[in-house]
Amino acid sequence: MHVELQRVAPAEIEARSMEIIRSELKRPLPPENEAVILRAIHTTADFDYAENLCFSSDAVKLGVEALRSGADIVTDTTMAMSGINKRVLAKFGGQVHNFIADAEVAAQAKERGVTRAAVSMERAAAMGKSLVYAIGNAPTALVRLYEMWQDGTLPKPALIIGVPVGFVNVVEAKELTMEMDCPWIVARGRKGGSNLAAAICNALLYTASQNERE
Amino acid sequence: MHVELQRVAPAEIEARSMEIIRSELKRPLPPENEAVILRAIHTTADFDYAENLCFSSDAVKLGVEALRSGADIVTDTTMAMSGINKRVLAKFGGQVHNFIADAEVAAQAKERGVTRAAVSMERAAAMGKSLVYAIGNAPTALVRLYEMWQDGTLPKPALIIGVPVGFVNVVEAKELTMEMDCPWIVARGRKGGSNLAAAICNALLYTASQNERE
Repeated sequence: MHVELQRVAPAEIEARSMEIIRSELKRPLPPENEAVILRAIHTTADFDYAENLCFSSDAVKLGVEALRSGADIVTDTTMAMSGINKRVLAKFGGQVHNFIADAEVAAQAKERGVTRAAVSMERAAAMGKSLVYAIGNAPTALVRLYEMWQDGTLPKPALIIGVPVGFVNVVEAKELTMEMDCPWIVARGRKGGSNLAAAICNALLYTASQNERE
Repeated sequence: MHVELQRVAPAEIEARSMEIIRSELKRPLPPENEAVILRAIHTTADFDYAENLCFSSDAVKLGVEALRSGADIVTDTTMAMSGINKRVLAKFGGQVHNFIADAEVAAQAKERGVTRAAVSMERAAAMGKSLVYAIGNAPTALVRLYEMWQDGTLPKPALIIGVPVGFVNVVEAKELTMEMDCPWIVARGRKGGSNLAAAICNALLYTASQNERE
């Protein structure tokens, strides 16, 4: 074979990848957001996230603290759910919820002519728990959170990770999230995805684990 | 709210998104690969895939035919597995396999000092079934498939979807896949992911469903 593979032990691939990402970044990252941005680029090989990812004040710190205190995570896809490191989350007492496939959510969405993602946000909020919302797919989930926040029916989220991907109302929904006075991490523009939502959750979880060891 | 949301019915969002993607493409897509490329961009909002996605001769046609004939899909992550439309796959008689979390695969990988992804490819090939390999994460899975093809121990794949993402041996592993004389779809370069692997599988499955109706 004329293609030359690098000899890197499986356990060292992630560290080596992070080194490469750092070396190719055009400018240094804000230290408080570095872990999240690096993992976003690691997951997508897309350096646009060095520019696109926006953070409310102390969003990472507050998200890490919430997860370390046992906050649960709510997602809008089974794919994001499956990408989140549930072992680390469980160590802190948290679990992942996803109500999209719930039969009652589907029935109510159909009856009301809204998306299942929107109804699933109401269902999550009604749990009355400390929640990290990790939205990688449905802009309507972000819009519903915004509406509930506006009419005062949304318990304050521990963090909203607003990273849906797409071409219809995605940019707009993220702009709404950035108006909210709760912690948020948003991938401004069209890009994002369930893989990114999971990667950001994992960056927070790994940071929480590190802090614990310190 | 000063942000203006478009009024698009949930069921029409995908069609509207595809229209937007088509209108922004710099040049027309090859008709035979259009469904796959459009869905890749739809899943990532990343127009780089209009350039990065490479196809062996008739790869889409052969992949669609294989799935319609009941081929199974093998993935290298639970995330890709969860993103594949298993309802449509089952309609044709196929199912998704992922041996990464298998205890025996893990034990063997540890003993041999190789990745679980590499061992899971051996395990998949040993099933003796018609297989679409959908690799969105582990370059070592692609490398192992290449090695097995070279030493004659790989039953001819129905299709290899080679779209791992990353910075170490990812570019190289994909180049190896493109040397193989079986159908392949590869995202050249660093970009890719489990979401993309699932999206490509779904594009093939939806094409298979359409052809069936015609």
